[in-house]
Amino acid sequence: MCLDTEEDRIPEHFLGDSHPVRAFNEAIIEVTHDLAVAYKLNLAFYEAQGDQGWLDLEATIAYIRSKGDLFIIADAKRGDIGNTARKYAEAFFDRLDVDAITISPYMGRDSVLPFLGRKGKWAIVLGVTSNPGAEDIQFLKVKANGERRLYEVVIEKMAAWGRPGELMFVVGATRPAVLAEVRAQAPDHFFLVPGVGAQGGDLSDVMNAGMTGHGGLLINSSRGILYAGQGEDAVPAARRAALEMRKEMSAAMQARGIIAV
Amino acid sequence: MCLDTEEDRIPEHFLGDSHPVRAFNEAIIEVTHDLAVAYKLNLAFYEAQGDQGWLDLEATIAYIRSKGDLFIIADAKRGDIGNTARKYAEAFFDRLDVDAITISPYMGRDSVLPFLGRKGKWAIVLGVTSNPGAEDIQFLKVKANGERRLYEVVIEKMAAWGRPGELMFVVGATRPAVLAEVRAQAPDHFFLVPGVGAQGGDLSDVMNAGMTGHGGLLINSSRGILYAGQGEDAVPAARRAALEMRKEMSAAMQARGIIAV
Repeated sequence: MCLDTEEDRIPEHFLGDSHPVRAFNEAIIEVTHDLAVAYKLNLAFYEAQGDQGWLDLEATIAYIRSKGDLFIIADAKRGDIGNTARKYAEAFFDRLDVDAITISPYMGRDSVLPFLGRKGKWAIVLGVTSNPGAEDIQFLKVKANGERRLYEVVIEKMAAWGRPGELMFVVGATRPAVLAEVRAQAPDHFFLVPGVGAQGGDLSDVMNAGMTGHGGLLINSSRGILYAGQGEDAVPAARRAALEMRKEMSAAMQARGIIAV
Repeated sequence: MCLDTEEDRIPEHFLGDSHPVRAFNEAIIEVTHDLAVAYKLNLAFYEAQGDQGWLDLEATIAYIRSKGDLFIIADAKRGDIGNTARKYAEAFFDRLDVDAITISPYMGRDSVLPFLGRKGKWAIVLGVTSNPGAEDIQFLKVKANGERRLYEVVIEKMAAWGRPGELMFVVGATRPAVLAEVRAQAPDHFFLVPGVGAQGGDLSDVMNAGMTGHGGLLINSSRGILYAGQGEDAVPAARRAALEMRKEMSAAMQARGIIAV
């Protein structure tokens, strides 16, 4: 589930705390960590608070770690030339100590390789994203072994550079037909699937289109859990929403081994 | 010029300072601000130092501001869905108060538009980058009004969304023929040109290929100035390197109005 916490959406009773974002995150993690297997934090929401946001990010990651074996994703969408990519890998894997970081593929091989080959760490490359603008660039028709969409070529190239144990793809929930097609193309790599909930993706459509015999999906609730309720009910509502999502997934999870974020 | 400062490359006599990166940056700015018109800070190098890095970044920006009318670029290569892109615009334009931010185009329109329409602020979209991996994705052949390279289609689409007064493109210095071709395609937009110096781009080739009648280039020295010298000579050497670059550009600048970073 995502922790894209915005200070102006935090319930009032947290605002008296010296670090409201951190306090709210901890309360949400407290009531969801036994239901989620992963947390995704989008850097934009922390960077908008400057150095204090960075401290909130570090503190939130430490709090998640204290709760046991949970997978932590920095949704950062970085991508830069080789020596800079290495510095980002250091910033996220060594300094922040997250398990995975999202990466933009536009700059090619040397922007992705520095994130691979790190035991227990993952690069999650943007394949097909869930937003409307995805169609502007990702859906362009490319000539490469016949005519294909750009996202297909991106996924094919990147999948050849990174093993399933170190590389995943972002494949949005909002276009299930595309998800099914990409799954056929990359049968062994995990997909991080954002866009279920607020962005309109349907959970059962996603599971039907994307799951493999071994699971293969990290399905992310886009703020549906984080902002499930208001005021004093915000935290209990988050637990109810997480339970609901867990329940909705459980039958297929037991049968197929899907992992729910 | 770039301020991609790494703590382990700072001359020893700065390491006793309570904030070595900041102290080194200030010394470099002190001796170059009358020669440069812009500073580019790559976020990776600051994020690798966590919250302290963010404080160094803020302090460096404030120091540049104190030196007068200088253009500040956050080389961040962000790119995300609409609501997140708005948050990044807030983080960089409002909170950090930089003049420009580099943006990855892969997620399309809603990842770019939130950075436009802000008076005095600029989005700088990746067109053709200077690294070897650029050829993996950016050079793919795309079918869109005939057959063209992906970067051409990216630049054409983005140029239609953003006016020359709010949108620039990153066009690397390492492929002058491509720079000339892209200049023909986008005659009125500024280009930020990295890759001169350490990455192998040649200054006069870049100027011949990319300058317009009104200038139109922000040429960035990739660490050639920042790390021009060692030890006690590091700061004086940075000034000498900046003077050298300034001199090399000056004839053409006077004739054509090129702006040198």
